[in-house]
Amino acid sequence: MTSFIFRRQLTVEWGQCDPAGIVFNPRFFEMFDTTTWLLFEAALGVKPDALARHYGIVGIALVDARANFLKPAKFGDVIEIAARVTEFRRTSFDVEHRLSIGGDIAVEGAETRVWAVRNKTDPDRLATAAIPPEVIAKFG
Amino acid sequence: MTSFIFRRQLTVEWGQCDPAGIVFNPRFFEMFDTTTWLLFEAALGVKPDALARHYGIVGIALVDARANFLKPAKFGDVIEIAARVTEFRRTSFDVEHRLSIGGDIAVEGAETRVWAVRNKTDPDRLATAAIPPEVIAKFG
Amino acid sequence: MTSFIFRRQLTVEWGQCDPAGIVFNPRFFEMFDTTTWLLFEAALGVKPDALARHYGIVGIALVDARANFLKPAKFGDVIEIAARVTEFRRTSFDVEHRLSIGGDIAVEGAETRVWAVRNKTDPDRLATAAIPPEVIAKFG
Amino acid sequence: MTSFIFRRQLTVEWGQCDPAGIVFNPRFFEMFDTTTWLLFEAALGVKPDALARHYGIVGIALVDARANFLKPAKFGDVIEIAARVTEFRRTSFDVEHRLSIGGDIAVEGAETRVWAVRNKTDPDRLATAAIPPEVIAKFG
Repeated sequence: MTSFIFRRQLTVEWGQCDPAGIVFNPRFFEMFDTTTWLLFEAALGVKPDALARHYGIVGIALVDARANFLKPAKFGDVIEIAARVTEFRRTSFDVEHRLSIGGDIAVEGAETRVWAVRNKTDPDRLATAAIPPEVIAKFG
Repeated sequence: MTSFIFRRQLTVEWGQCDPAGIVFNPRFFEMFDTTTWLLFEAALGVKPDALARHYGIVGIALVDARANFLKPAKFGDVIEIAARVTEFRRTSFDVEHRLSIGGDIAVEGAETRVWAVRNKTDPDRLATAAIPPEVIAKFG
Repeated sequence: MTSFIFRRQLTVEWGQCDPAGIVFNPRFFEMFDTTTWLLFEAALGVKPDALARHYGIVGIALVDARANFLKPAKFGDVIEIAARVTEFRRTSFDVEHRLSIGGDIAVEGAETRVWAVRNKTDPDRLATAAIPPEVIAKFG
Repeated sequence: MTSFIFRRQLTVEWGQCDPAGIVFNPRFFEMFDTTTWLLFEAALGVKPDALARHYGIVGIALVDARANFLKPAKFGDVIEIAARVTEFRRTSFDVEHRLSIGGDIAVEGAETRVWAVRNKTDPDRLATAAIPPEVIAKFG
């Protein structure tokens, strides 16, 4: 469990909501994705669009995503997101996203991602590589 | 585990893909959502937009969603989706979505949903209700 | 032409971009929609989710949208949006959205919307109503 | 005005609709984009993901998009889309999208696109090229 926590706020938009007037679930996975990029920017000081080039990787590829929806988020609600890496393994890591509204947890999300590089024998495919210790160190 | 399986095919669209040229993960959760509606239509013979009215419910509200991404889906790929209810409980149920491309599993998704009604004392909140046996029976 | 201009900034997200690495055009129309709600909030002091109730309307329904794409917006680009109402008519109005990146105009968008109320004889349909003078006055 | 018309049908999905219960306008621009790819596939016999490679272009880049919303589309509505190229110019062309529901026009959309190639002196920028006569001929 790393100690670095990235926080952001966003206000639910009309177009993120469905006919029930609440955020349509795929929109939360969009929020997770963007938040992970911003978490890495905050921890590493490298802008999202420079991350791949900076570390010589293809990206931080998603292999698993999940969410529990505890409380609906409505148009105009202010969502507070707190994200952190809950575990670094050799080539993969887990990110936790806790979304709260007015102090109550609304959504608990989690992603598993890999440090992805080009496969040497087949450049169309991905391979995983060891996450550099200096990257892990920056998350505390 | 129910025996009724709903299958559909779709072709990956340009706008579903990200700068890596592969389907952006929230788009898979859109596919799961639509597929669950169609699975229920196929099993029950009730159109999605008539489901709530037909059964006197608010809807089949999502409480949990998850996906494993095993193989990327690219622009133009034909995705074959097979969906079924893996378990009915008293007020909730699980739906499994298996997405394959050219015979290989690309994404394994799962949703947990509840049979949702209006809360009697606070109509702004939801409550769960028992899933009618005749609904469960239609899934085999 | 009103004088009230609403400005906001946003950074292009990974999931807003297509395989060409640039913002997928429908995402700009999402930006227009949200920006119009925020323009009204800024001018009127009424939060988007309270607008309909506050003025006894159904909403500010879109009847026309258009955009010129002059310069692509890439992942990580900071987009500066300036929005204003270019014309108020009796029951409708035009909103202009100018999106610039690094000082250069990237997208010019425009929406035409109506002050929409329930049709009295058929509540499933919309009708237009006269925009209150005090609303128009707040846009300068 | 070319004579080749491409038609498709789609059913409005839950996640395409907003809290008013109608299709959120950017979703129509997604439909236009996909329909244009399919129109080209139908006319040219080249699959969308092979189009750029087949003709040695970067793509058919959008420079202008617009839509009139005449009638709302609701969850479950069957939308009939008819698309055609209304004009070919030397390096650009216009596509018209007519969306109807139950025989009534619901949305009239239009796109202007260019036959886009890499700029020779600056490969990061696009240039336009003459549309091959054999491409135009296939649209009748």
